[in-house]
Amino acid sequence: MMNKTTIKRKPGVKPNKPIMVVGLPGIGNVGKLVAEHLRRELNAQKFAVLNSPHFPPQVVMMKKGGVKLVDNRFYLIKSKKPKGSDLVILTGDAQAMTPEGQYEVNSRIVKFFKSMNGEFIYTVGGYSIGDAMSQKPRVFGNATGAEAMDRFKGYDVLFGKSRGVIWGSAGLIIAFAKKEKINGVCLMGETTSFLDVDASAAKAVIIQLAKRLDLAINTADLDRIIDKTAQAMRELEKQVGGLGQGQPFGASPPAGEPEHRPSYIR
Amino acid sequence: MMNKTTIKRKPGVKPNKPIMVVGLPGIGNVGKLVAEHLRRELNAQKFAVLNSPHFPPQVVMMKKGGVKLVDNRFYLIKSKKPKGSDLVILTGDAQAMTPEGQYEVNSRIVKFFKSMNGEFIYTVGGYSIGDAMSQKPRVFGNATGAEAMDRFKGYDVLFGKSRGVIWGSAGLIIAFAKKEKINGVCLMGETTSFLDVDASAAKAVIIQLAKRLDLAINTADLDRIIDKTAQAMRELEKQVGGLGQGQPFGASPPAGEPEHRPSYIR
Amino acid sequence: MMNKTTIKRKPGVKPNKPIMVVGLPGIGNVGKLVAEHLRRELNAQKFAVLNSPHFPPQVVMMKKGGVKLVDNRFYLIKSKKPKGSDLVILTGDAQAMTPEGQYEVNSRIVKFFKSMNGEFIYTVGGYSIGDAMSQKPRVFGNATGAEAMDRFKGYDVLFGKSRGVIWGSAGLIIAFAKKEKINGVCLMGETTSFLDVDASAAKAVIIQLAKRLDLAINTADLDRIIDKTAQAMRELEKQVGGLGQGQPFGASPPAGEPEHRPSYIR
Amino acid sequence: MMNKTTIKRKPGVKPNKPIMVVGLPGIGNVGKLVAEHLRRELNAQKFAVLNSPHFPPQVVMMKKGGVKLVDNRFYLIKSKKPKGSDLVILTGDAQAMTPEGQYEVNSRIVKFFKSMNGEFIYTVGGYSIGDAMSQKPRVFGNATGAEAMDRFKGYDVLFGKSRGVIWGSAGLIIAFAKKEKINGVCLMGETTSFLDVDASAAKAVIIQLAKRLDLAINTADLDRIIDKTAQAMRELEKQVGGLGQGQPFGASPPAGEPEHRPSYIR
Repeated sequence: MMNKTTIKRKPGVKPNKPIMVVGLPGIGNVGKLVAEHLRRELNAQKFAVLNSPHFPPQVVMMKKGGVKLVDNRFYLIKSKKPKGSDLVILTGDAQAMTPEGQYEVNSRIVKFFKSMNGEFIYTVGGYSIGDAMSQKPRVFGNATGAEAMDRFKGYDVLFGKSRGVIWGSAGLIIAFAKKEKINGVCLMGETTSFLDVDASAAKAVIIQLAKRLDLAINTADLDRIIDKTAQAMRELEKQVGGLGQGQPFGASPPAGEPEHRPSYIR
Repeated sequence: MMNKTTIKRKPGVKPNKPIMVVGLPGIGNVGKLVAEHLRRELNAQKFAVLNSPHFPPQVVMMKKGGVKLVDNRFYLIKSKKPKGSDLVILTGDAQAMTPEGQYEVNSRIVKFFKSMNGEFIYTVGGYSIGDAMSQKPRVFGNATGAEAMDRFKGYDVLFGKSRGVIWGSAGLIIAFAKKEKINGVCLMGETTSFLDVDASAAKAVIIQLAKRLDLAINTADLDRIIDKTAQAMRELEKQVGGLGQGQPFGASPPAGEPEHRPSYIR
Repeated sequence: MMNKTTIKRKPGVKPNKPIMVVGLPGIGNVGKLVAEHLRRELNAQKFAVLNSPHFPPQVVMMKKGGVKLVDNRFYLIKSKKPKGSDLVILTGDAQAMTPEGQYEVNSRIVKFFKSMNGEFIYTVGGYSIGDAMSQKPRVFGNATGAEAMDRFKGYDVLFGKSRGVIWGSAGLIIAFAKKEKINGVCLMGETTSFLDVDASAAKAVIIQLAKRLDLAINTADLDRIIDKTAQAMRELEKQVGGLGQGQPFGASPPAGEPEHRPSYIR
Repeated sequence: MMNKTTIKRKPGVKPNKPIMVVGLPGIGNVGKLVAEHLRRELNAQKFAVLNSPHFPPQVVMMKKGGVKLVDNRFYLIKSKKPKGSDLVILTGDAQAMTPEGQYEVNSRIVKFFKSMNGEFIYTVGGYSIGDAMSQKPRVFGNATGAEAMDRFKGYDVLFGKSRGVIWGSAGLIIAFAKKEKINGVCLMGETTSFLDVDASAAKAVIIQLAKRLDLAINTADLDRIIDKTAQAMRELEKQVGGLGQGQPFGASPPAGEPEHRPSYIR
């Protein structure tokens, strides 16, 4: 049992035609920030846990002194409309460590979602342009196909403007969804290569997601992180102010570069 | 046979309701120091050996010119009380090198312990706070649950004060024990990131363990290493005196290190 | 399905006694440049796709906003002569990441080619001599045997002059072809260790291949990249002028790089 | 076939009660030098080839322009005495790249040797003491047991004086031989950490081996390499002469260190 990828599900919980938002650790932790924020703000209830020997062999130390295997978790938010689509949030502590593990874990996730008659998947990640910090991060999108892209007509989501590859769950889940004939889109917040936690990029994605899912989301939590980050940046800039350009703070991106530069996105 | 994880057990040895202490190579080698010390001081007898192709592909050169595959070993100390719980010490030369190997080896260890009607597991590790050396290392604990924590009421073990993840056997064994409904606790001695062998952290854990297991343990061996380390530190500080405390100045490991200095340290 | 190496083939497409040219990401991207150039210039049609969990766990972001699993692709060019050998081009985004994955993917490629009654395989790679840039890159060859080498009598291909090992598909496919009694040759363009994309080496190989396959190939595309690279080199040399030739001065890749700059280069 | 570890054997070749010498790439290439030297000097004939997907995914470029998968090879030298033990030399291009691959390949080697009614195995490696170069390299030994050690009474082979672990085939083959009740010994030539090819250490081992196997071995080839290395060293010392002690040339080993310092040996 402990040597296989398993999904353990709370008996009796049956999401209705669910829509899933996936946010796992990755570049700028944009995905994880988005998923954890939604989970908290919408008071989502955990209903399934995915364990895998392909995750890092670690346990998380819990606040009350317990332990928990590194895992991926499914949370449920019931729709307020009768027969409306429920919302499923997938987040977790880690991604699989090997190529083969990535294929196994992410194909299991898509099959599990299909077994629930899932209707649409949003994966969330960061798209790193380089060192520069954007004042107003853009949101890039890549989708299973035209039908999925059409959902974002009139939204501030840029399709066909990102280049390179998407690494890990954010990309594989969309590719596997396409094979299973489930529509989906990967939303990526524009981020920089030197922020471990980019709440600003996360907020940019949440704004589009909330509009698309017709949800009212309080972003006060994220705003606090954004303010603290901005303050830390200003202090750093003061200290290294005399060093001139080329520093990884506020540098402008090389002209004509963004579109062609490959970026590793989780 | 050589391509699988196997536990080979001396026939006829049947531990009674055993309690197990696990100490393997890791941060500061705290776990290994504790387990090897208990093994020597309590004159424990080897009764089972775990081999695995997931261990580093190495043999240990023995004192008399022989060789031995890198392995994990189970030692037994019979209780002095009639029908009392026997003590099992698990130590070894290495941990599995891949995530999948870690899951396999540690789940095998827990299943083997369960097959002996094992009652409680203590895993031992190091908890690295950073570069600073503590004069009086604290002991942190993470447990399978409240029942296991209760065993340490009135002890100098801090539950719920450590954060982050526990890597390898010290964590996975506790998580797997929980799944198998065996109680257990991971005890971590506070250590620094620049000591390869931290006898001071090991002693701090042994004091709590000895009290809990009602054992009289002579720590003269550890005291000798602690003194040598302190001396080496003082000399290093003289040489680099201007750099102040807490500097990661690349101290070399103390001279009187344990028999086989483990070559694979986590 | 997603956890295994699979080749999915368009139904009804039957290449006649095909000859295959294999060019995948690798040293100087010589192989990929050659294969992609032939594919475009000869208007080749995709007829089969190889997916594998041994590839990097990534999806490629497509121009129109879609996604595609990192894969290897087979393209077909029908012979203009009646009953003439068709040409198959194999190219892709990546190679397998592990030794075992390399063995699996490349043996599958050779078996698939054999199942089509394939007659001859050309793999293309780069042969890196060191830091120096050659004005007129040589082409080195290694073959399944004397019969395959004989095909290049009177050509500017040097057999028996290269030393060391060939890494990945370019080498394994020739070795596996030999085991399956299919003739083949690995053609390597002389390149330097500091060019990510070496169109000059690619052109040198294409000249020999075009002659051998009796194809008229326009190399204007490659010439443009060669010119841009040369220009970038001259500018770099001006800036670091005092360092002399042959310095590994960390040149950035040329601007006009191929569509998807491969992110995993060998 | 290509995805499994296989040993392909020339039909009809039946070594008589063979003794095997194993020398593969490793520290200072001592093992490989010894095995290749014996193979050449004794005019050994290849009779079996081991292929494995756990080897590096490479082909070797052959002198005449051919290719060959990286492999391990068995060579045979028939005994000159009637019913005398034949000599088998095992050498090759590489060792397995993963722990699991090492276990698989080396257990296959031992089982193959056992199936030939093999009597004794010598593995050869380098034992690195540190930076210092010894004028007269010692030979260290580790054996399956006392019976094997007894073979070297009166020889210049030091048992029980080496410490730490032996990495890869040189160690695992001895450990697996022990499990299969075949006697064997690992002979290690004293070498330094900064010589890629140490012919001096190789010669030291060959002298003991030749005596033990009652073979006359011409070492003129090795002497030539030794002379060239010594000359290169002298020139290096001239250039860095003013830098004093602590340089990796001719430094004396730290007192009392050799025995306790772990050394990675292949």
